[in-house]
Amino acid sequence: MARKPNKLKIVALGGLNEIGKNIYVFEYGHDIIVVDSGIAFPDEEMFGVDLVIPDISYLVKNKEKVRGIILTHGHEDHIGGLPFFLKEINVPVYGTGLTLGLAECKLKEHGLLSTSKLVRVSQGETIKLGSFSVEFIHSNHSIADAVMLAIYTPKGTVIHTGDFKIDPTPIAGPMIDLARLGEIGKKGVLALLSDSTNVERPGYTMSERSVGDTFDDILSSHKNQRIIVATFASNIHRVQQLINASVRYGRKVAVSGRSMENIVEVASLLGYMDIPEGTLIPISEIKKYPPNKVTICTTGSQGETMSALSRMAFSGHKNVEITPGDLIVISASPIPGNEKLIFKVIDELFKLGADVIYKSLDEVHVSGHACQEELKMILGITKPKYFMPIHGDYRHLKQHGILAEKMGVPSENIFTMDVGQVLEIDDNGARIGSSVPSGKVLVDGLGIGDVGNIVLRDRRHLAQDGLIVIVVTMSAKTREIVAGPDIISRGFVYVRESEDLMEEIKSVSREAIEKSRLDGVNDWTIIKTSVKNELASYLYNKTKRNPMLLPVIMEV
Amino acid sequence: MARKPNKLKIVALGGLNEIGKNIYVFEYGHDIIVVDSGIAFPDEEMFGVDLVIPDISYLVKNKEKVRGIILTHGHEDHIGGLPFFLKEINVPVYGTGLTLGLAECKLKEHGLLSTSKLVRVSQGETIKLGSFSVEFIHSNHSIADAVMLAIYTPKGTVIHTGDFKIDPTPIAGPMIDLARLGEIGKKGVLALLSDSTNVERPGYTMSERSVGDTFDDILSSHKNQRIIVATFASNIHRVQQLINASVRYGRKVAVSGRSMENIVEVASLLGYMDIPEGTLIPISEIKKYPPNKVTICTTGSQGETMSALSRMAFSGHKNVEITPGDLIVISASPIPGNEKLIFKVIDELFKLGADVIYKSLDEVHVSGHACQEELKMILGITKPKYFMPIHGDYRHLKQHGILAEKMGVPSENIFTMDVGQVLEIDDNGARIGSSVPSGKVLVDGLGIGDVGNIVLRDRRHLAQDGLIVIVVTMSAKTREIVAGPDIISRGFVYVRESEDLMEEIKSVSREAIEKSRLDGVNDWTIIKTSVKNELASYLYNKTKRNPMLLPVIMEV
Repeated sequence: MARKPNKLKIVALGGLNEIGKNIYVFEYGHDIIVVDSGIAFPDEEMFGVDLVIPDISYLVKNKEKVRGIILTHGHEDHIGGLPFFLKEINVPVYGTGLTLGLAECKLKEHGLLSTSKLVRVSQGETIKLGSFSVEFIHSNHSIADAVMLAIYTPKGTVIHTGDFKIDPTPIAGPMIDLARLGEIGKKGVLALLSDSTNVERPGYTMSERSVGDTFDDILSSHKNQRIIVATFASNIHRVQQLINASVRYGRKVAVSGRSMENIVEVASLLGYMDIPEGTLIPISEIKKYPPNKVTICTTGSQGETMSALSRMAFSGHKNVEITPGDLIVISASPIPGNEKLIFKVIDELFKLGADVIYKSLDEVHVSGHACQEELKMILGITKPKYFMPIHGDYRHLKQHGILAEKMGVPSENIFTMDVGQVLEIDDNGARIGSSVPSGKVLVDGLGIGDVGNIVLRDRRHLAQDGLIVIVVTMSAKTREIVAGPDIISRGFVYVRESEDLMEEIKSVSREAIEKSRLDGVNDWTIIKTSVKNELASYLYNKTKRNPMLLPVIMEV
Repeated sequence: MARKPNKLKIVALGGLNEIGKNIYVFEYGHDIIVVDSGIAFPDEEMFGVDLVIPDISYLVKNKEKVRGIILTHGHEDHIGGLPFFLKEINVPVYGTGLTLGLAECKLKEHGLLSTSKLVRVSQGETIKLGSFSVEFIHSNHSIADAVMLAIYTPKGTVIHTGDFKIDPTPIAGPMIDLARLGEIGKKGVLALLSDSTNVERPGYTMSERSVGDTFDDILSSHKNQRIIVATFASNIHRVQQLINASVRYGRKVAVSGRSMENIVEVASLLGYMDIPEGTLIPISEIKKYPPNKVTICTTGSQGETMSALSRMAFSGHKNVEITPGDLIVISASPIPGNEKLIFKVIDELFKLGADVIYKSLDEVHVSGHACQEELKMILGITKPKYFMPIHGDYRHLKQHGILAEKMGVPSENIFTMDVGQVLEIDDNGARIGSSVPSGKVLVDGLGIGDVGNIVLRDRRHLAQDGLIVIVVTMSAKTREIVAGPDIISRGFVYVRESEDLMEEIKSVSREAIEKSRLDGVNDWTIIKTSVKNELASYLYNKTKRNPMLLPVIMEV
């Protein structure tokens, strides 16, 4: 019997039908390589959850096949899950300098640095991992040192774009290596996996450099004010441009916010930033300089509650007190879901008498992701046989598929997929095969995966209407109430002003227990259920609320 | 001694530094009139709260002075608080036909219709209330029958714009009565209170009619698809335009969603809509017609969880099943905070194979509020002595103030105020005087104001990490444990997979109690505190979580 021919399998364990926790798996025969290992942020229904990581049980099961993990760039949604991944599957990690620098910080925090193997790969270099070769192609994104990947497989070449834009005038290094993509495209690309984030936007994303021009305008026209710029910590090119403009206008620069401080330190150490001697001052020393000779670069552009900018706005920042005349620039767009948070911060800053430049002035921020024309260009230059849109919600993937069809990819060769679904490619073509386990693992404090649907359902219930605990001590012998019922409520009503209601809750509970006893019920569980039912209907009629009810019977 | 001369007092009890719960108070001598009585929607931190109404205790205290309440238009943030208001202060309500029609529905729901006095006022009419006269001036907004008010006071004329835009080609009735505003302006306006919602947007708001053109384009180019349009229920002009386009293309129209059905019924009855005989069909009968001969007009344009569109998307709608080929048009912009909800719905609709037209096509929605040029026009035509920006967050009020200054209002005559602050105007000028009680009253179920900061703090705590109840029965005599400790946890960890942890919680609790006893502590409260402290530090070290801890000691 002939040996079964191998297939190339491609599966996303995260990053499809969601923004976040990017992780893509390529499998051939006995080899698996993994691209990225990101986290997602919890949605508003995931009460108390700190972050969300992908279910990698499929990889754990096939541990011995995994040859390594390749990082496309250093954003949280691509590297944030690395510590959790390496705890389960300790394989070498490949990435460019800055990406590994940021990954290192992360692994250090988790005490994993000494046991991890990080392999620095230069842009343009190719590494070999089992039956795969992977070429790192220079790219542009809102973080330095991002790469696209050409993954050479026994079935053909797969291009994985990572996150990208086409920036003809980037702040450091050349434009994305379209020429190399073209060469690869000419030789034939089996499949393209491409970033769908901005597919809803027509035209092109502006160059990062345009923000530098705006910074220059702002600094030149606000020479008498202290200037505070909030942006994403990881956008070191944005920070670099702010530093450049500050130097031009004779300002010192102070950095505020832990992640911003970390990244500036790592990026400077690794040579990704160029900060003239004497420019950077500690945030604790800003008072030594006239306000109009200082620029502060801070985190908090999304209005995050504990961020440096929030603390400034709500007067909780150790070193920065906002005063009338300060100019604050929000150099970012709100990520959907964060609008209210950032507007709250902006309102507070205005109330303190500051001026704030935000969103409506588009030039203070540009996106890091390609718009429609750029996406078409990548499709046109790589001419893939198969196309799989990645990195987006369903509507983004769907729209990207439509774009690909317009660019000549036959609709049957476009695969708009879901996490866990396996794209199988062999000599007979490509198809969606069976699925592998996938999903969200919730991290809460030190717990990984111990908060699931039941716990979340309870948290939602408690958040909605609070709870009432009814405790009663009963005699095992006589089945009579020995003590209680005592009532403890939290998050239901303001107890001090609801004493009558509390008394009524007691008597409804007592009656339910007495009634059960008279009916000859001996089972504590049945008695508790009866208390719960009586009380629930009493409370709903009385208040139209459904607090969680917890009857406890202590037997003596 | 000469009698103290009266002042005109203007105070907002809601609507400043917030979007929602608009209510403005005008007081002179023994007379008070109230403009609008709205609700606000709870923010994401107000767990379990259904809606927010203004604190009107100042008015309750001055009940005998209140001459009436005047409604500017029928949106929830202007009339939603009416039932709560009238329960406290039953005064006549003045408004235009549609506004009162919608108010009636609301009062009926609360069983207040028979005891309320509603007085219909026509546009252009003037009513007298104590020492005030109020003229109703025709306006344009995203709901029909909106008015501006000219309030004639003994100290001069105050213009209150309500919510407005300048629409030269509205769907029904004429353009806003700028001529009348001009006349009043020529005679002299003491103060202008003007809508600040869209002050961040340059230029003009498009006419409502432009949406009709888009509907026409969509219907003419999608003749073979069923079309479902989601919009705000109260925008009857939008619905009218959809009906007109549907009639032109030979389609029946069905309406889905309780509020949409109500409003269409009220508006038709009162003659605000013109629906050709036989056009409207019950939603339950759509299956009797070919899909491409039906338009469905639905609620849910904000992705609200229980709305008709959400139910369609998540396959929970009794009458509408989304099938491939359906075209859904979201004729609305997401209100900040709702972005994720509506995108979730759009993703689901795409997954069901439907086409969705949303935001990026601007022409499917226009705002109901004036942009900068329109705001300037109102300032220019009324030429107020004093200016008070209303209806907006702080940044809106602030920007509107800057706009007014550019339009020639001296900065000392611009009052950017907060709720509760009183603007006093007398012959010596205007100033911010003392404050009156104001704030948010939370409504949860039938409870009004019984959910306050303590209850919300507990709900937030419970939502974050859940709770653990520790119950123990102790002998009053021997101070020994008779039963327990028993542990009940909810929303903390998945108990079935955390048996060891639960056992440890028991033993930490038991040890804390024993230790207290050995230390000779007799006070149950101190023992409970000690259990709480020991357990909190144990759990935080072990899990980095802080569940709510509720120790209960039953004494026998």
